[in-house]
Amino acid sequence: MREEQRKFQRKEKEDKDIVFGVRAVVEAIKSNREINKIMIQKGINKDLFFELKDALKGADYNLQYVPSQKLDSITRNNHQGVIAFVSPIEYGNIEELIDQKMLAEEKVTILVLDRITDVRNFGGIARTAECQGVDAILIPSKGSALVTSDAVKTSAGALNRIKVCKTDDLKNSLFYMQQSGVRLIACTEKSKHNLFEVNLRGSVAIIMGSEEDGITPDLIKMSDISTKIPMIGKIASLNVGVAAGMVLYEKTRQELYG
Amino acid sequence: MREEQRKFQRKEKEDKDIVFGVRAVVEAIKSNREINKIMIQKGINKDLFFELKDALKGADYNLQYVPSQKLDSITRNNHQGVIAFVSPIEYGNIEELIDQKMLAEEKVTILVLDRITDVRNFGGIARTAECQGVDAILIPSKGSALVTSDAVKTSAGALNRIKVCKTDDLKNSLFYMQQSGVRLIACTEKSKHNLFEVNLRGSVAIIMGSEEDGITPDLIKMSDISTKIPMIGKIASLNVGVAAGMVLYEKTRQELYG
Repeated sequence: MREEQRKFQRKEKEDKDIVFGVRAVVEAIKSNREINKIMIQKGINKDLFFELKDALKGADYNLQYVPSQKLDSITRNNHQGVIAFVSPIEYGNIEELIDQKMLAEEKVTILVLDRITDVRNFGGIARTAECQGVDAILIPSKGSALVTSDAVKTSAGALNRIKVCKTDDLKNSLFYMQQSGVRLIACTEKSKHNLFEVNLRGSVAIIMGSEEDGITPDLIKMSDISTKIPMIGKIASLNVGVAAGMVLYEKTRQELYG
Repeated sequence: MREEQRKFQRKEKEDKDIVFGVRAVVEAIKSNREINKIMIQKGINKDLFFELKDALKGADYNLQYVPSQKLDSITRNNHQGVIAFVSPIEYGNIEELIDQKMLAEEKVTILVLDRITDVRNFGGIARTAECQGVDAILIPSKGSALVTSDAVKTSAGALNRIKVCKTDDLKNSLFYMQQSGVRLIACTEKSKHNLFEVNLRGSVAIIMGSEEDGITPDLIKMSDISTKIPMIGKIASLNVGVAAGMVLYEKTRQELYG
């Protein structure tokens, strides 16, 4: 391999989650690439800003205004005051997926991650979910881990196979599922029902919460049932990725055996 | 808090897994501190070396001879050519533990980790094990993750509660358990038996292998039964920490319910 090629490959690897410079970001928007977030420099050049603003018109991007040092710390290249964080995967639409499954009269298993912010946890959970036949992971558009190439790596490639859906209104999407006959199951240590006593067969959406404060109370309230993982030890706090694994295993067990 | 105190605390935090300098290391050995590994500089001063050698006499420490740069990269302090990696926990003896449990006519659950080298995986598994009532984790003296303060941190403190036993001869220790009435259960994807079809009740030692190449074939051969986790997806490869969680959950389920 020639030296330039090698250099190019290395560079591409380093930067594959970002697109920088006004024209390049505008191009990414126009070609409908999935964009996790756009960082814009406070006090950016006016002409460039208006060009960018024009491209952003009508779409709901996650914009963040930051000092130039922030952008400089992300890339040494000439970013012209704008960096877009592109997603290595394409997001799906949960309502469309549910409709397809209902039309085909197929069962569906959705894993809902309510504010899981750790990229490694997210990638690890995606890996487990793929192994246990989950149809899609549903996350809220804001307050979740970004699907970065690090997440794809931690997922051992599972994020290239399993569908990830984003929703601007998690409660609404859960309601949509519920109305389509999908039972909502909230995993929370405050539940009275041991995991093995809860029916996980058929179409379900399993909700896991953040490690810090669990599932949003509103979502627990609207769930069909809650469940907890039985604990014997004194620490009684599992990593969310391990907990998700136990719940998905129990579903597989019930489907195959129980 | 006064500035010196703060400095002292910071320093202590940075260095709590290492003891350096010949006298300090000799002192650590004499006071029976748990030592994971001792690094010795190639071409160390003779007098110091003999003093150290004298202290090491008769004991089986994990010694490593390295160039001085290696030691310099670990501490900027005057290490005199020797650094000991001390353990934040005390290791137990598996044979003693088994004997105690048998005498008391109590059931025992042992989790055997065959060459799990990732410190984070190790810490994470310890956390799960504590939550699921495992009595002890058994690891081989060589080829395992060192129990460092990072491992203790990842374990959310579980490593301060759960017993960790080291053995110089894993096969021998497993044989000892087997002769004491503990059933050996090997978790391997090559097994014919689905996890939920295998009896995990009572005294068991559950063996998990490295992510790279699973359990050592000899250990699978001597096990009473092997078992696999049912998989539905295409990737069919779980993180070892998640797999351990599923197996321990299944044991808890069977004990409480099945």
